[in-house]
Amino acid sequence: MTTRNASNEPASPSGDGGFVRLRIDLAYDGTEFSGWARQPGLRTVQQVVEDAITTVLRLADPAQLTVAGRTDAGVHAAGQVAHLDLPKAPEALDALPRRLTSLLAEDVVIRAVTVAPPGFDARFAALGRRYAYRLTDASPDPLRRRDTVAWGRPLDAEAMDTAAQSLVGEHDFAAYAKPRTGATTIRTLHELSVRRDPDAVVVTAHADAFCHNQVRSMVGALLAVGEGRRPVEWPGEVLAAGVRDSAVRVAPAHGLTLVAVDYPPDSELATRVTQTRRRRDA
Amino acid sequence: MTTRNASNEPASPSGDGGFVRLRIDLAYDGTEFSGWARQPGLRTVQQVVEDAITTVLRLADPAQLTVAGRTDAGVHAAGQVAHLDLPKAPEALDALPRRLTSLLAEDVVIRAVTVAPPGFDARFAALGRRYAYRLTDASPDPLRRRDTVAWGRPLDAEAMDTAAQSLVGEHDFAAYAKPRTGATTIRTLHELSVRRDPDAVVVTAHADAFCHNQVRSMVGALLAVGEGRRPVEWPGEVLAAGVRDSAVRVAPAHGLTLVAVDYPPDSELATRVTQTRRRRDA
Repeated sequence: MTTRNASNEPASPSGDGGFVRLRIDLAYDGTEFSGWARQPGLRTVQQVVEDAITTVLRLADPAQLTVAGRTDAGVHAAGQVAHLDLPKAPEALDALPRRLTSLLAEDVVIRAVTVAPPGFDARFAALGRRYAYRLTDASPDPLRRRDTVAWGRPLDAEAMDTAAQSLVGEHDFAAYAKPRTGATTIRTLHELSVRRDPDAVVVTAHADAFCHNQVRSMVGALLAVGEGRRPVEWPGEVLAAGVRDSAVRVAPAHGLTLVAVDYPPDSELATRVTQTRRRRDA
Repeated sequence: MTTRNASNEPASPSGDGGFVRLRIDLAYDGTEFSGWARQPGLRTVQQVVEDAITTVLRLADPAQLTVAGRTDAGVHAAGQVAHLDLPKAPEALDALPRRLTSLLAEDVVIRAVTVAPPGFDARFAALGRRYAYRLTDASPDPLRRRDTVAWGRPLDAEAMDTAAQSLVGEHDFAAYAKPRTGATTIRTLHELSVRRDPDAVVVTAHADAFCHNQVRSMVGALLAVGEGRRPVEWPGEVLAAGVRDSAVRVAPAHGLTLVAVDYPPDSELATRVTQTRRRRDA
């Protein structure tokens, strides 16, 4: 269990507005959630976690979380990060993960709650997000059916890995993004790789950030290569064309897991936030 | 996918009584089953698999399976083996695993159906059973909560492994068995080991066969050592005492998975069946 603030003392406010910002590390099985973001009448991760925090801390105003990766319905997280601002630091911070987890259903685990360093912002201070996508072309393991897609046809993981390399780098990923008006689709993809593990074919994607549906669309294009329906050059050609290609099928949600979010050293947090906000508005 | 009988031809009867014996390899998530064995009004693995076979093969008499490891409620299997006798070999045997799996709920997967070699018996021809028991003393992964026990206290896996060695060998495991009248509790434990993997503490148990509750009782004794409540000698002392010790708590079912069943070469199957039956009746 990660504990960034080992002391039991209530921390001093992180700064400006006389509030304290908490960093929350959490994991969830997305199977029975309609994704992260609150939606009226639906069970979402944001809703159950905010409600648990409001209850445990007896907050007058309901807790409001800002998250690093807004996962879609059915997508899982092993290393999700969120933040929350409170008028003052809660007592017994160290006991909070266990208290929250015991209140939540067993598909969510609060791994750590810590006072965030000055300048921290779960979303805008993030340097990168890492996702894993799991598939199997062998007889599936029923115990992994929630996070591993059973792919009925044999896959050539090496060809998929070769094809993936043409997407790495800074590009306009409009061809792999569900459009959102007024937002740039330029991203820097640090890694896109495909390996065959003993129990699954695993696609790893690491970028500064991802557009909506981007990982699942890229996986969909790689699957066309893996099945031999398209040549290894095709995913790169789709990228270069710059428009959505109806031949790219978005891969199923349940194979996808947000594995980790990385942040710069504390001294560079504020600069990173300014940079990110500027880029997103461009 | 394993296919022992690659041909599509209906096989000739395996012998004696003019019937054909099929070997069925299967895997299941035991979470929502009341164990393997049929019980009136309860959902069990035997019931759903037998019903699927009866339907798909349009059998006049309901299918009756004999299984290698009768798992308890909540226990999983990655490599369970069963057999079934039919008046004649079904057509299109190769397609049967997929047809059965598509009829079953997604917590059971039929991995292979093959014509068994002469003398094969899923239960009595087995040389050994291998089980794995998974625990975590860190923040649990919600995606593995079905097969990994969240253990609230830190575990010393090395001490557990040392303690485990005193149980290896041929012994009377009465101290670790739920008594069944008229059955011997002498078993040969080939391996009992504990290792710390990145995501779990894994106990591996391999024996010719196990008494009812034996693996979970042995794990319970090892956990007392792992927590430091008992010395490493204690599980061996309990074994030597030969009677159930109320201080041994049976570990929860959902950490346990039947990983594999091993059989001798085809030429030694019949001899093995005779040996096993003789020993069990002793």
